[in-house]
Amino acid sequence: MARGRKYRGFVYTDDLTRPRRFLEFLRERVEPPEVEELEVGPEVAGRVLADDVRAERPSPPFTRSAMDGYAVRAEDAEPGARLRVVGESRIGEEGEVKVGPGEAAYVDTGARVPEGADAVVPVEFVERDGDEIVIKEGVEPGDNLDRRGCYVEEGEVLYPAGHVVEPVDVGVMLEHGVEEVRVRRPLRVSVIVTGSELVERPSDLESEAQVVESIGPVLEAELARLGFVELRDRRLVEDDPVEIERAIVDAADGSDVLIVTGGSSVGERDYVKEILEDAFEDFIHGIRARPGRPFGVALREDAVAFTLPGWPTSAYTTFRVWVTPCLLALAGADPEVVGLELPCEGVKGKKALGVIARVELEDGRARGLPRDRSSHYALFREADALAVLPPGGKERALVLPLRRCVNPFEWVERRRGDR
Amino acid sequence: MARGRKYRGFVYTDDLTRPRRFLEFLRERVEPPEVEELEVGPEVAGRVLADDVRAERPSPPFTRSAMDGYAVRAEDAEPGARLRVVGESRIGEEGEVKVGPGEAAYVDTGARVPEGADAVVPVEFVERDGDEIVIKEGVEPGDNLDRRGCYVEEGEVLYPAGHVVEPVDVGVMLEHGVEEVRVRRPLRVSVIVTGSELVERPSDLESEAQVVESIGPVLEAELARLGFVELRDRRLVEDDPVEIERAIVDAADGSDVLIVTGGSSVGERDYVKEILEDAFEDFIHGIRARPGRPFGVALREDAVAFTLPGWPTSAYTTFRVWVTPCLLALAGADPEVVGLELPCEGVKGKKALGVIARVELEDGRARGLPRDRSSHYALFREADALAVLPPGGKERALVLPLRRCVNPFEWVERRRGDR
Repeated sequence: MARGRKYRGFVYTDDLTRPRRFLEFLRERVEPPEVEELEVGPEVAGRVLADDVRAERPSPPFTRSAMDGYAVRAEDAEPGARLRVVGESRIGEEGEVKVGPGEAAYVDTGARVPEGADAVVPVEFVERDGDEIVIKEGVEPGDNLDRRGCYVEEGEVLYPAGHVVEPVDVGVMLEHGVEEVRVRRPLRVSVIVTGSELVERPSDLESEAQVVESIGPVLEAELARLGFVELRDRRLVEDDPVEIERAIVDAADGSDVLIVTGGSSVGERDYVKEILEDAFEDFIHGIRARPGRPFGVALREDAVAFTLPGWPTSAYTTFRVWVTPCLLALAGADPEVVGLELPCEGVKGKKALGVIARVELEDGRARGLPRDRSSHYALFREADALAVLPPGGKERALVLPLRRCVNPFEWVERRRGDR
Repeated sequence: MARGRKYRGFVYTDDLTRPRRFLEFLRERVEPPEVEELEVGPEVAGRVLADDVRAERPSPPFTRSAMDGYAVRAEDAEPGARLRVVGESRIGEEGEVKVGPGEAAYVDTGARVPEGADAVVPVEFVERDGDEIVIKEGVEPGDNLDRRGCYVEEGEVLYPAGHVVEPVDVGVMLEHGVEEVRVRRPLRVSVIVTGSELVERPSDLESEAQVVESIGPVLEAELARLGFVELRDRRLVEDDPVEIERAIVDAADGSDVLIVTGGSSVGERDYVKEILEDAFEDFIHGIRARPGRPFGVALREDAVAFTLPGWPTSAYTTFRVWVTPCLLALAGADPEVVGLELPCEGVKGKKALGVIARVELEDGRARGLPRDRSSHYALFREADALAVLPPGGKERALVLPLRRCVNPFEWVERRRGDR
């Protein structure tokens, strides 16, 4: 296991400007998990679609009133005209009533617009007079209604294969009559944390030189939030090549993905990389970004292993920025860029190197925090987001929010105070 | 139950510029849930802290090397100086070695800096020569090390009461030796969806005028993501005042919060508001924003009820923007504003009215989508975020991302292409 040997299938991703190769590399070599069928409901949220999902029902499913008002023929509804009210159309009712020349029918918002009518006059624009209405303001054909299928036609693709289902997508699928969907089964992930200095719990601390294992629980909580991952195993292993190898081999059985933290740098006790080079096949190592150097991906027929730095700060950052989209790709998804791109200031770092920094967000700008060092774990308390800065230009950053807790009440009040 | 009567404790929040009153109103009147004790671990993520959490251990817990190198007395480490290597300090070891004048000790990154030393010379700045090192570049006291407690002192408040624990906070607490925390028990929430036109499943559809109930499953999935909520019950009820009242009274027993969708506007079948005015005490109704008019909050001694619009689009938007921070406040949290504030364009709406719009995000700007109407549920497919715009000024928006799926790989590649 000497250093510097030629590795089988070794690819060195030597520039943050080419990180797309990571995803291509994974997609080319790894089959997504098997397909399963689920009833559309809350449990579909977070899962990855295996096939295109098509609308079984158009939207709206019938020509629908957008207002409480009177369905009319627009040509009859001149200001001052009197129309005879021949019936009403209520939400949820089939609506037998038809509207002929000189006629009108009451419609609820969301109710079916009766046959014959081509516009709706809102209640506030008519005067009711017994069985008749008097038009105060006229309408054009198509006013205040949504035609059947004007938003989504029957058979149209609602979501493509590879889409990650968000909660609101579940509602859109149900509205369009989708009863079941084919999704990928969850990705089975195991987490291995290495480090002889680590103890499981604060109460296990016996000396000042020991450190509580604090990255495994964080990764477990983050993985649980993804929705397309099932945690198989999480364990702590000493810096011993035999134990690490055994843990990796054990975990690789029955897991699609291993995440291994620590032991992947260039120190004397950094065994992980060499063990993976032996036990796995292709190996990509190192993204030229800070943090990120010990980030690597190893593949074998039935499993993928990611290596993360040992500092919890760097491990977490690398997980959030680089591993999450890789997990999405492995789960069969097509991770999109959502452009939370903001002007950025105050982040230090070498120009030639990409940087991931902890930032605060204010007035639409990301601002680097003082003392952003990998040894300063508690700095996450002050950070609103992680900012990804490409090599060279540090003026704009891709921003990944760290806290979900948002208070528009307070924000609106503050904006008001600005003026 | 005539319209226009004077309601007990009625407060009309008549302006989006005063929405903070909603939260004040809730905080003044509602006690947060009871306290429970949890071991610090992944299951604490999402929960609300009941007390301040203090560091049981400083960070770092000992003066720690930030580099692989040699611990020295800075005054000895002039360029060209020769120092005798008297030992080494490894990660996880107590380190008996001490550094005296003219001496040095090898230290791993993260290992304890031996007594006597006040700086670390990185390995690349020394030449090893048997038992000695030759200094190539000097250091100042404090270089390349983190002093005990320099980030967090023992006993310092790590997180205040009311903080919502994110996954990374779990790691920070463990690192600082926190074994257990006192948190609020989860908020018990029931969801009642009203509407005679609604059926439970697509396979239940019998007529074109029926609509599949599609907001309840969305709210269930969103509530599950919050982490501080336990869903008690979710049910569908017809537009019948007796049934709605029974459902509300049933659900109020054993729930802290009811969320009721539909039936709160001003139509003939809008019974919910009046039932709540009878069954509950204080009632705040209507935020002057679109959507949001049917949004209301009713209180009684042991429960809070929120009313949401009936259109799924509006109900979801109101839930995300206004109900989520209220739930946080009720759970005992202090929801912060996280300033995802972006320039915004292309959103229509009355100037005097606050607007919540669906937007796409590109190049650091939010842009309104065409056809953003509450009847157009499927437009969520094209939206990256909800944008909250205060009354009057529509140039800047508070942005709440709708999709969590982000791909920095792709983004970095694109930024590269820009230059």
